[in-house]
Amino acid sequence: MKLTLKEIASWVSGELKSSTNIVIHGVAGLELATSKELSYLGNVKYIDLLKTTQAGCVLLPLEFKSRPDLGYSGPVIYVPNTQWAFVQILRGIEKEYKPKHPRGTPHPTAFIHPTAKLGKHSSVGAGCVVEEGAEIGDFSVLYPQAYVGHHAKIGKHCLIYPQVVLRENCELGDRVIVHAGTVIGSDGYGYLLQNGKHEKIPQIGRVVIEEEVEIGANTTIDRATTGETRIGAGTKIDNLVQIAHNVKVGKNCLIISQVGVAGSSELGDSVVLAGQVGVADHAKLGNRVVVGAQSGAMGNVPDGAILFGSPARPHREAMRLHALLGKLPEMYETLKKLTQERRAKSEI
Amino acid sequence: MKLTLKEIASWVSGELKSSTNIVIHGVAGLELATSKELSYLGNVKYIDLLKTTQAGCVLLPLEFKSRPDLGYSGPVIYVPNTQWAFVQILRGIEKEYKPKHPRGTPHPTAFIHPTAKLGKHSSVGAGCVVEEGAEIGDFSVLYPQAYVGHHAKIGKHCLIYPQVVLRENCELGDRVIVHAGTVIGSDGYGYLLQNGKHEKIPQIGRVVIEEEVEIGANTTIDRATTGETRIGAGTKIDNLVQIAHNVKVGKNCLIISQVGVAGSSELGDSVVLAGQVGVADHAKLGNRVVVGAQSGAMGNVPDGAILFGSPARPHREAMRLHALLGKLPEMYETLKKLTQERRAKSEI
Amino acid sequence: MKLTLKEIASWVSGELKSSTNIVIHGVAGLELATSKELSYLGNVKYIDLLKTTQAGCVLLPLEFKSRPDLGYSGPVIYVPNTQWAFVQILRGIEKEYKPKHPRGTPHPTAFIHPTAKLGKHSSVGAGCVVEEGAEIGDFSVLYPQAYVGHHAKIGKHCLIYPQVVLRENCELGDRVIVHAGTVIGSDGYGYLLQNGKHEKIPQIGRVVIEEEVEIGANTTIDRATTGETRIGAGTKIDNLVQIAHNVKVGKNCLIISQVGVAGSSELGDSVVLAGQVGVADHAKLGNRVVVGAQSGAMGNVPDGAILFGSPARPHREAMRLHALLGKLPEMYETLKKLTQERRAKSEI
Repeated sequence: MKLTLKEIASWVSGELKSSTNIVIHGVAGLELATSKELSYLGNVKYIDLLKTTQAGCVLLPLEFKSRPDLGYSGPVIYVPNTQWAFVQILRGIEKEYKPKHPRGTPHPTAFIHPTAKLGKHSSVGAGCVVEEGAEIGDFSVLYPQAYVGHHAKIGKHCLIYPQVVLRENCELGDRVIVHAGTVIGSDGYGYLLQNGKHEKIPQIGRVVIEEEVEIGANTTIDRATTGETRIGAGTKIDNLVQIAHNVKVGKNCLIISQVGVAGSSELGDSVVLAGQVGVADHAKLGNRVVVGAQSGAMGNVPDGAILFGSPARPHREAMRLHALLGKLPEMYETLKKLTQERRAKSEI
Repeated sequence: MKLTLKEIASWVSGELKSSTNIVIHGVAGLELATSKELSYLGNVKYIDLLKTTQAGCVLLPLEFKSRPDLGYSGPVIYVPNTQWAFVQILRGIEKEYKPKHPRGTPHPTAFIHPTAKLGKHSSVGAGCVVEEGAEIGDFSVLYPQAYVGHHAKIGKHCLIYPQVVLRENCELGDRVIVHAGTVIGSDGYGYLLQNGKHEKIPQIGRVVIEEEVEIGANTTIDRATTGETRIGAGTKIDNLVQIAHNVKVGKNCLIISQVGVAGSSELGDSVVLAGQVGVADHAKLGNRVVVGAQSGAMGNVPDGAILFGSPARPHREAMRLHALLGKLPEMYETLKKLTQERRAKSEI
Repeated sequence: MKLTLKEIASWVSGELKSSTNIVIHGVAGLELATSKELSYLGNVKYIDLLKTTQAGCVLLPLEFKSRPDLGYSGPVIYVPNTQWAFVQILRGIEKEYKPKHPRGTPHPTAFIHPTAKLGKHSSVGAGCVVEEGAEIGDFSVLYPQAYVGHHAKIGKHCLIYPQVVLRENCELGDRVIVHAGTVIGSDGYGYLLQNGKHEKIPQIGRVVIEEEVEIGANTTIDRATTGETRIGAGTKIDNLVQIAHNVKVGKNCLIISQVGVAGSSELGDSVVLAGQVGVADHAKLGNRVVVGAQSGAMGNVPDGAILFGSPARPHREAMRLHALLGKLPEMYETLKKLTQERRAKSEI
């Protein structure tokens, strides 16, 4: 990356205030940035870092134009939203540095069934396997060693990282990103106890991932017993997450690493599940529900509820209980004293 | 799938009650089934759904033949066990729809060491690697990109999904199913602190998976330091589960997603570990032990115990404590009041 | 393995006391060892097993030479440190039994970009993909089906098991071991809410793994947004662990299975995180911090602290609370009685 300040300023429609037009080689946080790197003030609480930063240029909010008290006198680009401007710059850099994939011709070591359909400008990497009847949309990239099962469908502009497994009949919408090692469409966990043996219930449903979903690495999403497991548009799933069979996840949810959602549960839109949360089977979480880290949610949870604990309680209650728990030793001692006094009195 | 009601009825040895012999195209739950789909009443608590279901045919228990009050007048197939009949129908459908794998000749892109032995009618998919001295049993299917290590053995009628790794010397019994991305035989986690460094303890044991075990996606089962890590016949393991080195799991256990079983622990037969449970190292769980979701079990647990909580307690006690915890604020206030009164009195 | 007692004794510089020079075929614990296997007393608490062991030879501590009361009269090799001697024997056995990998010439089914550099005596297995500008150090082994991204670097004497993914620009030091299915360098989980949509923040940083780190199977380590995610030298990470973007892990840490460390957290040296622990984002754990299984750590944790619980408290406090929790029913009853008495009195 080599960009002049002027180029960057025009990129983010910002106002450049600088006596020079130096060349920027990279980006970094205020603490780590060097004189050849661009940084930004993403949150006012870090304002003191401006006094010591070595950054070659800083993105500041427009309203800071009239503040001479920042203790920073280097080059500035003023923008309406520093975070968003920084993301745009990252995107520009990414475009340049990200490995390019040959488009249009699959890698000679990939195995592609003759009935599979490859979209225009799509890319199929080395060692990939694309089975009978599968479809890859236009501009979609399969990194090496991915597996696309029979009659599976991948939309347009998707990014499938190495060693992803998409099993038969499953479907990804447009602009979906799936990170390495993730498995979509593995059999749901279903058995029927017959004469002391767990007999397998065939899982003949599928998984549907709607558009603009991103799924982290080594995550697993099981196919439905019948019908669909479905992930709503714009939802972002982190690494090592388990989504069981027949689960429905709404739109724009955030599901952090190592969360497990058990079978047939339903999440509304904009739900946030923090790290290592468990959601019991057949639970129904309303829109905008937030569940704190390591908590266990179950049953019906109303829109907008904030839960914490295992089993989960309303967040405020859980926090109060956590604080009171710390007073348990004191409570125990007080109670002992009161009981002893009572006994002493009754003996008088 | 296209089956007449008569065909389905004969399939499950059921009694057909219908004025027509319509063609069924699929199966679904009572709520979602359309007029071309078959459904079933799996549990009496859903009996009211019969009044509104659109299903083209419903499986009902034999004892419902004399009940005119169900509010459902469409085609019925009466069977002794509706769940089991439904499973049999799913199996029939699965046989038809499941991708077929070419038998007898490995895929040309697979690498198979000349000393490896492939059973009759076995299938080795594209990009698979089968190392020196490995053995694949008759009728077993390796989906693409699986790895079978040196001298590893796979029994008969096994189903190995894409990108499974079975490391050297490990062994799978007959009719074992392993889902995509699962690793069997990775090194156990063992170090010895010597002069401030964690020196690796070689893990030269192996993993033995007995017959009819099913293992979910992206699960890990470590090889023993010496001897064996062993999973008993008929046990079913879900996705993202960790089984550490030297663990012994009994027969017909159910181990739900994201469970971790630490080193050298032993599980009896028919143990159930719910989602995200942890079992400490060197624990010994008796037969039919049940551990509730997100709980942590350790030490010796007697046959039939039901545990809950982290650290786990007997389930009944844990539930009572959970309820009493909710009363902690009230208890705290009461105690405060009592103490204040006492102080007031003593001041008099 | 076939070694005489004399050979083994000289191997570990031990003193052999035996009337014969039998041949040993393997090793095992005291309880399981047969007359052709070597065993060892690793911990004095197992001393009674010496009375019943069938082992063909036992490693004992030097100071046991003058103890005739052990109830064991078979062959003995006396060594200063039995555990360490046993590890050395395991290493000797491993060298013999471990699959050998052809060195110097990559497997013909591997795809290696012409600009990639392969070190002397390195090995690239079947189906591997080594992208543009990647580097593999001398003597390093890539098991089959591994993926090494653009400009990624692997040090010397590394061991990369099947189906590992190392994404672009990431770097492994010398003598690093990575187990099967692990993903290094997946995108960090970062989004910016803009007009109701979670906009992806490009993750253009990388991952650096220092020398002598070992990483278990199906683990995920995310690349930094900018800069580095870094794992310090000598740290050992177990299976199914999540390390988020921008995390810094110190040297010689032990991170057990299914731990999750959230974004931008820092761990000092020699930190121990037990199984299923969660570390919140932006936490800072000092040197030698220990967090108990299933606990949740956050904020600043001083050097040497021992934590337990979710959310975590100091270990001693957490253990006391756990014990007191068990007395909650009794406390509740006592409090009820006291309140009733008070009410009775006030009514008098």
